Amino acid sequence: MLEDCLENIAQWEPVVGAFTAMNVDAARQAADAATARWRAGQPKSAIDGMVVGVKDMIDTGDLPTGMGSPLYDGYTPRFDAASVQGLREAGAVILGKTVTTEFASSQPRSTRNPWDPARTPGGSSSGSAAAVGTGMLCGALGTQVVGSISRPAGYCGAYGYKPTPGGINRGGSLDFLSQSVTDTIAATLGDAWVMARAIVERVGGDPGMPGITGPLTPPAAQRPLRLALIRTAGWPSLQPAAQASLETALETLCFHGITILTRETCPALAAVEAATVEARVQTLIINAWKWRWPLGSYVATDHSNVSASSRDRHIHSNTLTQNDYSVALARRAAARATLATLLQECDALVSITAAGGAPVGLEKTGDPIFVVPGSYLGVPGVALPVLEADGLPLGLQLLGAPGADAALSGHAAFVDDLLRI
Amino acid sequence: MLEDCLENIAQWEPVVGAFTAMNVDAARQAADAATARWRAGQPKSAIDGMVVGVKDMIDTGDLPTGMGSPLYDGYTPRFDAASVQGLREAGAVILGKTVTTEFASSQPRSTRNPWDPARTPGGSSSGSAAAVGTGMLCGALGTQVVGSISRPAGYCGAYGYKPTPGGINRGGSLDFLSQSVTDTIAATLGDAWVMARAIVERVGGDPGMPGITGPLTPPAAQRPLRLALIRTAGWPSLQPAAQASLETALETLCFHGITILTRETCPALAAVEAATVEARVQTLIINAWKWRWPLGSYVATDHSNVSASSRDRHIHSNTLTQNDYSVALARRAAARATLATLLQECDALVSITAAGGAPVGLEKTGDPIFVVPGSYLGVPGVALPVLEADGLPLGLQLLGAPGADAALSGHAAFVDDLLRI
Repeated sequence: MLEDCLENIAQWEPVVGAFTAMNVDAARQAADAATARWRAGQPKSAIDGMVVGVKDMIDTGDLPTGMGSPLYDGYTPRFDAASVQGLREAGAVILGKTVTTEFASSQPRSTRNPWDPARTPGGSSSGSAAAVGTGMLCGALGTQVVGSISRPAGYCGAYGYKPTPGGINRGGSLDFLSQSVTDTIAATLGDAWVMARAIVERVGGDPGMPGITGPLTPPAAQRPLRLALIRTAGWPSLQPAAQASLETALETLCFHGITILTRETCPALAAVEAATVEARVQTLIINAWKWRWPLGSYVATDHSNVSASSRDRHIHSNTLTQNDYSVALARRAAARATLATLLQECDALVSITAAGGAPVGLEKTGDPIFVVPGSYLGVPGVALPVLEADGLPLGLQLLGAPGADAALSGHAAFVDDLLRI
Repeated sequence: MLEDCLENIAQWEPVVGAFTAMNVDAARQAADAATARWRAGQPKSAIDGMVVGVKDMIDTGDLPTGMGSPLYDGYTPRFDAASVQGLREAGAVILGKTVTTEFASSQPRSTRNPWDPARTPGGSSSGSAAAVGTGMLCGALGTQVVGSISRPAGYCGAYGYKPTPGGINRGGSLDFLSQSVTDTIAATLGDAWVMARAIVERVGGDPGMPGITGPLTPPAAQRPLRLALIRTAGWPSLQPAAQASLETALETLCFHGITILTRETCPALAAVEAATVEARVQTLIINAWKWRWPLGSYVATDHSNVSASSRDRHIHSNTLTQNDYSVALARRAAARATLATLLQECDALVSITAAGGAPVGLEKTGDPIFVVPGSYLGVPGVALPVLEADGLPLGLQLLGAPGADAALSGHAAFVDDLLRI
């Protein structure tokens, strides 16, 4: 499997630029050890030998960690982050670090979309999604605070799984935002699940949270009875081809007996949609306040190596107060409270990951307006690359109940089986 | 003030060994700048010019950060931790790093108790407490997950303030335990409060938490009507001199019209005492599970530089499962729930910080059994060095309601005014 990945790297990496660092020798050693364990009938876990990459926001003891910023040039951590330790203990083969936007935020780096190098791969988990989408990796770690998994997974044709916040231990990742969560991207939905569970069984969740629970194998496909079609604030920008692909998918689901709820027939869904209209605005406030640190230290230490967009965020953060943060958190909590009623009436929410296929241009990573509600609501989500628009892949996203990640994964497996191209 | 501190350092540091690193030149520059701001009538905050130290678990961009472990020898972070950024932005003069036990856990380092160098200063915030107790610093940052502030503050004759967990942003501190919190130690209760508030106004609390709120100046002394004397699991070990000092203090409080509740007269207090009998056992489980990371990486990377006690914890951690952690968290949540009733009947809980003065010997940091309930319950606490035993200082601790840190500080100021030696 590693040699297959390396062949794909030889073919794709010069075009795509998904990696910031790689350690092929160490990976070969780890892969050989995994092979020996399987032959002996003693694999460490279901992902023993899986070839994975790590978003360059997450510390790796044997590889540089650059945070997408020249401020971290030459920085190699002494120790693995929690998620990386979990992967290693499970026997995974850590091949390299994958490109992130600056600080997993909005400023893109060099990665290109494998379906069309003139287009963005999405962000912030750009390299992870592009590497998995091309088979350069079987799976990769990412992080999402706004739309950093679901969007690039959709754009690159990979499966993304965003756990309930706190579901995967973030220790050792530069990740201090309340909506942010460590996620998995993989070539199949089951792989994304198994990878996450293998980590969490070993290193748990965030402080005070046990982490995601459920089987160590992919949850069995489970037919959802009702899915709520959440039309986010970005809906008017939905492009015709994307809309057509989504409608075809929903018709297929209907044909197989799944009821699609809409705001017209479901007041609880209308309430959630109304409460998430401001998801992006409130998320920006919540994130900007928390960014006072470390942006204040970054700017004080080496202003010239902070991007213009991060400097703007620093200025924004300095206009905010503790109380602004409290008010924004209260609004978010109120939005989350609207979910409880809706989730009594449906098995999951369904939507699309972006307005269309990845846009042309590398200076932006695409609009996250379709995926920010899932982050704002603090729910688990999956992105299934089962839609397409103008010949480009696009994701169907499913959002579940907080903590019910395994149930979501089971329902998503059923939907994926029906829609997989 | 800085020159006074430096004189005290010349006298005390050779005996006490409270520092791991110091930058006197940078401190003098910062102090001069602060002096200029005060003269111009434009101080940055109430702590502009305050001479402070930083526990060596917390990153400082200009000084080594050793985590009390040879694993971090030679490590100097690139950027300040959130609390350090807050101090710097408020104009504080950061003089040096203070000794911590290994990873803020149980293995002591070199610091001695200033009242008797044959005795422990307590831990894990050993250097912070000893440096403040001797006037080498006006204030210092610490952390507490079991008893790492209240106990050494009492042993060294300093004031300690442990906020409600999440009350001070822990970003950039090696601090990933759910009960742990960044704290302040200072020469007065008011200084400890003002220091904490100056930080939090600038960098907030933990992710999703606004951080402690209240005045930027010391809360006015506020007479408590009722205090609940919580007799912790360690009570049978209370030494006669310490007990006598505590009883004298309680009599003084009674004399001034404060009612002391006890388990005999207050069933709600009896319930809290019963629920916290297992505070230490459950805390050890909760901490050990979270220590799977990074101990797993430490042991895998450089086993020989991990202390025997940390290796034992690593072995313990590997016997635990996600479910063990969940069960322990549920027990802790149940214990916390017993508090609500009690806090309707009293203004704060009162107790002692240790069984007696600091014990002889440097190979252990003293028993935390008297202070672990405050950590387990997730409440704010203060340690007032107003007791004494056999010529050694000892702390009276007050514990308040979660989030009501300012009220606790006001009640503690009243008690301190009555009892200060």
